Amino acid sequence: MRFTIRREELLKGLMIASRAVASKVAVPVLANLKVELNERGLFITGSNYDLTIRTFIPYKQDELEIIRNFKEGATLINSKIIVEIARKMGCEEITLDVIDSTIATISGGGSEYKLNCIKPEEYPDLDLDSSGTKLTLRKDQFDAIVAQTSFAASTKEQRPILTAMNLEAANGLLVATATDSARLARKEIEIDRGIDFVANVPAKMMVEVDHLMEGVESVDIAFSDKKALFSLGRTVIATRLVAGDYPNTRGILPRITNYSLEVNASDLSKAIERANILSIDRENVVDLAMSEDGVEISAKSSQVGSAVEKIELFKFDGQQLKISFNSEFVLAAVRALGSDDVTFLFVGEMKPFVVKNNADPSVIQIVTPVRTY
Amino acid sequence: MRFTIRREELLKGLMIASRAVASKVAVPVLANLKVELNERGLFITGSNYDLTIRTFIPYKQDELEIIRNFKEGATLINSKIIVEIARKMGCEEITLDVIDSTIATISGGGSEYKLNCIKPEEYPDLDLDSSGTKLTLRKDQFDAIVAQTSFAASTKEQRPILTAMNLEAANGLLVATATDSARLARKEIEIDRGIDFVANVPAKMMVEVDHLMEGVESVDIAFSDKKALFSLGRTVIATRLVAGDYPNTRGILPRITNYSLEVNASDLSKAIERANILSIDRENVVDLAMSEDGVEISAKSSQVGSAVEKIELFKFDGQQLKISFNSEFVLAAVRALGSDDVTFLFVGEMKPFVVKNNADPSVIQIVTPVRTY
Repeated sequence: MRFTIRREELLKGLMIASRAVASKVAVPVLANLKVELNERGLFITGSNYDLTIRTFIPYKQDELEIIRNFKEGATLINSKIIVEIARKMGCEEITLDVIDSTIATISGGGSEYKLNCIKPEEYPDLDLDSSGTKLTLRKDQFDAIVAQTSFAASTKEQRPILTAMNLEAANGLLVATATDSARLARKEIEIDRGIDFVANVPAKMMVEVDHLMEGVESVDIAFSDKKALFSLGRTVIATRLVAGDYPNTRGILPRITNYSLEVNASDLSKAIERANILSIDRENVVDLAMSEDGVEISAKSSQVGSAVEKIELFKFDGQQLKISFNSEFVLAAVRALGSDDVTFLFVGEMKPFVVKNNADPSVIQIVTPVRTY
Repeated sequence: MRFTIRREELLKGLMIASRAVASKVAVPVLANLKVELNERGLFITGSNYDLTIRTFIPYKQDELEIIRNFKEGATLINSKIIVEIARKMGCEEITLDVIDSTIATISGGGSEYKLNCIKPEEYPDLDLDSSGTKLTLRKDQFDAIVAQTSFAASTKEQRPILTAMNLEAANGLLVATATDSARLARKEIEIDRGIDFVANVPAKMMVEVDHLMEGVESVDIAFSDKKALFSLGRTVIATRLVAGDYPNTRGILPRITNYSLEVNASDLSKAIERANILSIDRENVVDLAMSEDGVEISAKSSQVGSAVEKIELFKFDGQQLKISFNSEFVLAAVRALGSDDVTFLFVGEMKPFVVKNNADPSVIQIVTPVRTY
């Protein structure tokens, strides 16, 4: 294999594929990227088995020659090293010349690197097949799903299923749900009727796909039994699904609520952040006390002192109520709504409560209160 | 004590004084700031014994009232908490009211904090006396000393004296020296004749003082037996000196050199950084090979491969020479010179070499080569 390539294009491709390469690899060969030049162009693949990213660079784009002076072939090159080289070289073009698929010479400007590389046959066969149930989402829809729900998924591996985002399509609606069992986030997107599936995609993979969507207008997703395949522009991303059944979360949304509080999202967030300075004895736990006469957020530390924040502008409906919650959960829920105003619906002191924006019923956040002593 | 103060001014003062408060304090009372209002204004003091910072906020500045509605007094308040509060409060003014020197009420906007605080008598007596040998440096002079030498001081406590910057004034010259024994940086500044002293100031304290010099035109320094006192604008900084004699480094500068290399600083730095990607077997060690025919920087890893960087533009005087060095040391030395061109003077393969800029003889960098096998 041999080619001369515009450095910026190569770097972009290497950086995309290398996102799938783990910093500590379990299988040594996966510390490498597979670099393959065929009649269509240059394919660069990185993988950690759970996540595989393959990206593509064509020979020409809009009459601009990207790859020239080439001979087809393939090799495996250390991901970290090749990314660093492509990043730090100052020249416009880089020439890669692989001799006998075991030594790659990378040159350009005054630089010449000789890297030991590995025959492409050593790379595992990775399933990038796009069969299965198909769904296309616009970038803004995918962005919204990720921004409004992914943070609520668990980051702990004790219950792997909770690290997933549950995606369920039926009756013209895609419902994305994430929960770590103490809070839940749900987003609904209207889709074409006739698309039916259930898939549990690791939430961090959804975030990863969203990162890679820059400059792309839509993503085609194919869900099969064990994997989801995302195609966006010149990049294909395959992620394993999380095995097991997602907990039934439909019943968690309270049918009847007894209290409602409407406040400015920014006023509330700032007040929570300020009160939170004193959440020392019980980390991040703040109290919200409300009645028709006033709304207060407070926190107390026996050693250090106490904080009381008055919210001046509010609409409250209901009897007097005091509730304690994890401030990080409520701040994240409010942030995810992305709206100027936010409405809280409470059932009672110890029941999960709803955080939503009346203008956008497609997204709902639920937070479980914290028991106070 | 009681006062209402403009929040921005208070925050600025708190942030300055709190830089002296250690994140993990050995003596609990030093987790606090001393806040004292007297007839001159508000004094805020933070300390970790090695470093003490006291800053001052006047009642009025340029006819603008900063502190109003006041009653003199003092208290000790938890540094981290009060800084966070002053940072996060949204209001223009904050009122601090200390009852019985043990409870401070901090209020403003819709916020009210009650903080447990400590009587001012519990704070240690800190020496902020400005007697001793005096020296005034302009900001640009102090900046240059710190930027061009401090990085070369040791960060390891095995030989505490090497964590200091050696400042020596005599015959109208201030010489600042820092070395970790593998490299050395020296800067000379012309000062008034008749100022004579030797002081070993912890290099990280010099960096700290430099951070606090923003917006100040000069610093007055007083050196006494055990401390250096820096006065800059409304802030006074006291730092202990490092005990012991600084090693005699005068002899390290080679008198006769046999090789000289002049190159563009940026070309050289980039070439070193690129070759350094392959400095894996011996971390950060690169080779520099030079003759009249060419200059090359290279690095090699038996596992991964090799890098060769050619420097196209150079002036070399001498026989053929190959030398190995710690790339970080040479990069830091070149960066510290801050010049477009850089000159290397070599004695031989294993002798310390000089890195300097011919246009500025006030600064000199010396690096010891690394033995190659």
